[in-house]
Amino acid sequence: MADDLQRQEIADARASAAETIRPTVPALEAMLFQAFPVLDHGFVRVIDYMGDDSAIVQAARVSYGRGTKRVQEDAGLIRYLMRHRHTTPFEMCDIKFHVKLPIFVARQWIRHRTASVNEYSARYSILDNEFYIPAPGNLAAQSATNRQGRGEVLDGAEAAEVLDLLRSDAERCYAHYAQMLNEGDDADPTRRGLARELARMNLTLNTYTQWYWKTNLHNLFHFLSLRADSHAQYEIRVYAETMLRITEAWVPIACAAFRDYRLGAVTLSAQMVAVLQRMLAGEAVTQETSGLNRREWTEFTACFPR
Amino acid sequence: MADDLQRQEIADARASAAETIRPTVPALEAMLFQAFPVLDHGFVRVIDYMGDDSAIVQAARVSYGRGTKRVQEDAGLIRYLMRHRHTTPFEMCDIKFHVKLPIFVARQWIRHRTASVNEYSARYSILDNEFYIPAPGNLAAQSATNRQGRGEVLDGAEAAEVLDLLRSDAERCYAHYAQMLNEGDDADPTRRGLARELARMNLTLNTYTQWYWKTNLHNLFHFLSLRADSHAQYEIRVYAETMLRITEAWVPIACAAFRDYRLGAVTLSAQMVAVLQRMLAGEAVTQETSGLNRREWTEFTACFPR
Amino acid sequence: MADDLQRQEIADARASAAETIRPTVPALEAMLFQAFPVLDHGFVRVIDYMGDDSAIVQAARVSYGRGTKRVQEDAGLIRYLMRHRHTTPFEMCDIKFHVKLPIFVARQWIRHRTASVNEYSARYSILDNEFYIPAPGNLAAQSATNRQGRGEVLDGAEAAEVLDLLRSDAERCYAHYAQMLNEGDDADPTRRGLARELARMNLTLNTYTQWYWKTNLHNLFHFLSLRADSHAQYEIRVYAETMLRITEAWVPIACAAFRDYRLGAVTLSAQMVAVLQRMLAGEAVTQETSGLNRREWTEFTACFPR
Amino acid sequence: MADDLQRQEIADARASAAETIRPTVPALEAMLFQAFPVLDHGFVRVIDYMGDDSAIVQAARVSYGRGTKRVQEDAGLIRYLMRHRHTTPFEMCDIKFHVKLPIFVARQWIRHRTASVNEYSARYSILDNEFYIPAPGNLAAQSATNRQGRGEVLDGAEAAEVLDLLRSDAERCYAHYAQMLNEGDDADPTRRGLARELARMNLTLNTYTQWYWKTNLHNLFHFLSLRADSHAQYEIRVYAETMLRITEAWVPIACAAFRDYRLGAVTLSAQMVAVLQRMLAGEAVTQETSGLNRREWTEFTACFPR
Repeated sequence: MADDLQRQEIADARASAAETIRPTVPALEAMLFQAFPVLDHGFVRVIDYMGDDSAIVQAARVSYGRGTKRVQEDAGLIRYLMRHRHTTPFEMCDIKFHVKLPIFVARQWIRHRTASVNEYSARYSILDNEFYIPAPGNLAAQSATNRQGRGEVLDGAEAAEVLDLLRSDAERCYAHYAQMLNEGDDADPTRRGLARELARMNLTLNTYTQWYWKTNLHNLFHFLSLRADSHAQYEIRVYAETMLRITEAWVPIACAAFRDYRLGAVTLSAQMVAVLQRMLAGEAVTQETSGLNRREWTEFTACFPR
Repeated sequence: MADDLQRQEIADARASAAETIRPTVPALEAMLFQAFPVLDHGFVRVIDYMGDDSAIVQAARVSYGRGTKRVQEDAGLIRYLMRHRHTTPFEMCDIKFHVKLPIFVARQWIRHRTASVNEYSARYSILDNEFYIPAPGNLAAQSATNRQGRGEVLDGAEAAEVLDLLRSDAERCYAHYAQMLNEGDDADPTRRGLARELARMNLTLNTYTQWYWKTNLHNLFHFLSLRADSHAQYEIRVYAETMLRITEAWVPIACAAFRDYRLGAVTLSAQMVAVLQRMLAGEAVTQETSGLNRREWTEFTACFPR
Repeated sequence: MADDLQRQEIADARASAAETIRPTVPALEAMLFQAFPVLDHGFVRVIDYMGDDSAIVQAARVSYGRGTKRVQEDAGLIRYLMRHRHTTPFEMCDIKFHVKLPIFVARQWIRHRTASVNEYSARYSILDNEFYIPAPGNLAAQSATNRQGRGEVLDGAEAAEVLDLLRSDAERCYAHYAQMLNEGDDADPTRRGLARELARMNLTLNTYTQWYWKTNLHNLFHFLSLRADSHAQYEIRVYAETMLRITEAWVPIACAAFRDYRLGAVTLSAQMVAVLQRMLAGEAVTQETSGLNRREWTEFTACFPR
Repeated sequence: MADDLQRQEIADARASAAETIRPTVPALEAMLFQAFPVLDHGFVRVIDYMGDDSAIVQAARVSYGRGTKRVQEDAGLIRYLMRHRHTTPFEMCDIKFHVKLPIFVARQWIRHRTASVNEYSARYSILDNEFYIPAPGNLAAQSATNRQGRGEVLDGAEAAEVLDLLRSDAERCYAHYAQMLNEGDDADPTRRGLARELARMNLTLNTYTQWYWKTNLHNLFHFLSLRADSHAQYEIRVYAETMLRITEAWVPIACAAFRDYRLGAVTLSAQMVAVLQRMLAGEAVTQETSGLNRREWTEFTACFPR
């Protein structure tokens, strides 16, 4: 796909405005269709949206007019809904993204089932020769303490070796994929090409794919709460962070409530609440006297250092 | 709720237009927010929408620009997707309705789970004194042959008695509901009112409720295929028929494909296909020689009379 | 429906045991099919189940054998999964209930969409003459402070009047429902009966219905976290509490984790965490200096009284 | 993973029987836990199930006892439910599979969202060195007429070249994956290993993964109707066919109805029905006079040859 052609198509799409009486968000309109770069070849684009902060209020009140009474009052209602997990009004807003992402990231992402997806079909079409290679600063060693975490960053010869292996394997696999397909200008007319649905199995998991992904604001917040979290794998977190910034332009009040009551919130077990109550009463609680196991105690004291 | 106030709110909402570069459908914009009457006190209003016919095409192609290449080609693709049940591109369009409907209809409707709903809360608010009474032409007797169907229409004294019972019971129950609540201008300050969440249990099932209901085009078509069907109960079918007309204004190409390949389509069992093949070969097939049971044979010959 | 017939059917079902190599939970087997009474005419029965505590472990490990390594280790894993909201392994257990409940309770319940439901059809069949009348101790006045809450209990003449209205309206509406149907032994052969799908609209919302309701353990916990909560309406909470006791017999380890990390847990906003940190450091924080609004401060101090 | 260990774990699981009063299906019990081989290294195992044919009947009737009245009557009801797409009673049966499958097949499979999944985590664990290589008879060329289809089978030098490329690329990529991980007995203690969550991106899409996959009978039938169909890609179809055989052992009546009314059924558009009616009336209809486009006519005459 020629990048210039894409840019022209995006410019064309942005050029054709129309009048609407639907809720409209100027800050998001300014972003529509544009590609926000993520990783080395990926991007996130907003294709369409429905609703705004006041649509949440309107649905919660099942009212006839636009949601807004007074901005202050609407914000209070939205924050109340978020705090008490009255989630259905947030389902009344939708957003549709076009995303380009490595296949191993797509495999994590697709586990969120309450979304609509149209993926570029490698059964029907030929994938581009693009694959993800981590930037040197993201080339992390396996964590020694957390089986699904990262440790320090590799460097020097270690990093060079890894980068070389990743790159050469992806390139070779793609070249053989193209050779097996035997299509296009370089095709050898004396040979038959392997079916696309078979040839694709030779590609590596860092090959880029792309999809249209549409979800409602409630499910988007759930996605962001897991994937914009510091425990998420870096390669999906950067997508989530880009989407979080877009969401802030779209529904600023709901997004602020999300940051306060979800993303930055802490859930304490019944036991942890009891420990805190004892600490507030002046008791010096230790892990031994807390009733928490070691792991819980570590998590607890990370949040409430003594 | 004062009708005039509602009309003013709707007029206000319709008056405030904005520019957007999102896909916009003028024929649907012309309908937005307006109440389409259904039954004696119900309505359907479109509150918002996302996408159009070309958004289906765009998602199916995972393309950068607007879907449209040539109108002819796009229509061919949409019809192909519908015919072969490639349903995901239809999920890329969303529509949000505000509906006022009797509770017994709401109970059928809510069985469609893949939608977002915000219902007016009788736990939190007081319901209006409005209930559904069938028009005389819809006052059907129980079918003698179909346990969940209607027979001929009642008339004369029979009809008058039924209408009188329905009306007087609904009125009395509502009056007692209000009496138990003991709120508003007529409240007796020497008595306490019953909790709203309890008092509501005294209402009859033809009391009107209202909700915001949002779904995507794929699930809307599923809803319409069941509820705009001649076997659906009349009281929900009239809602579905109104929504079908709205859908036609919104996505005319997809809706035409839906009519051809879903609503007007017939599914034949393996056995029925075999019977048709024999009939086309000139054989005179009877129920006895068909291999179909009586019920299937009746269904079959209703479609293909001999 | 004759109660004796039901009891016989339940006894018959309990009598026929078979061998299975599936995970089996004796404590739940002892409860199967039996009706646990709820409210005045309702019940909850377990019809079937799939999986146990060790099935959660087995799925989390994607292992070949039964989950159990050592009981201690399995419990640790289940608690870790619950604490960190790794919810998918809990989806691997299913339970199917048969529930009899008032229609206004059913309308709250059905808002939980991720379940399978088969409801007794009043379009097809005739409902029994059974309706819910609150016990005197549950006849609560409207709360003066919380629009969707209950205040003190009504008594004396106030209570008597309410009970009389509820009972007489439900009885009259049912009698007219039967009269309009005009079926059964007392039917008047000179009149036609109204269609069942229409006649049902005359019933009051406290009429009992029944359904089969099946869900997985993850969604059951979500249901219980909302409906076994003290803010839930009493009439649905008693169902949830019965189901919670059943769940305890079924998956005791997961259920204990649910109590600790969900039901008895507290979620603190980013601001509340900051306030707690200041309080632990010895600062005397007031609402004014907390950055919390009045409502949040009330919720906060209810949990951490000063 | 040692095959012997797996076999022992499966044998152990099969050895421990218990009594249950739940519905039990001896024909499925005989299959439980055993691995049915699919492709070169894959398998399907049934881990657990809930319900049987009579559970469908019981739910449809919302009855107290076991579904069965008379076998004949139950079968009639199940066939009626299937024919008229009354799908909810089929949701009352569940089945849980353990599946080992190539990643590119898993990516197709996961698009079915209404299921519960626990996949072996390559973020947390190390994948085995196993990948799919097509048997010579399945090495199909790209179809010349259908962009997502297969043509004739490659052979001779063409086949040999493809097989060699697939095998050598998969082997090399896995070897480098292991080298980057630098774990286990052969680890070089002077080097740090790359994080597992990163190293996995070097694997090819034919690498095997495995998961627990649980769904209800309604969604299983939907999966089978698409994936056991002749248009499905061979590599996923063989899994679906194995699962269809298992389903036949589990719910023979429902499965027969599924074959007649879904898998072997044909859906005709409104236009096709009209054409058939004209043909039955003796008219010689051609594509030109049919009103069908070329593609539809081809599909139509494939089913009803003239």
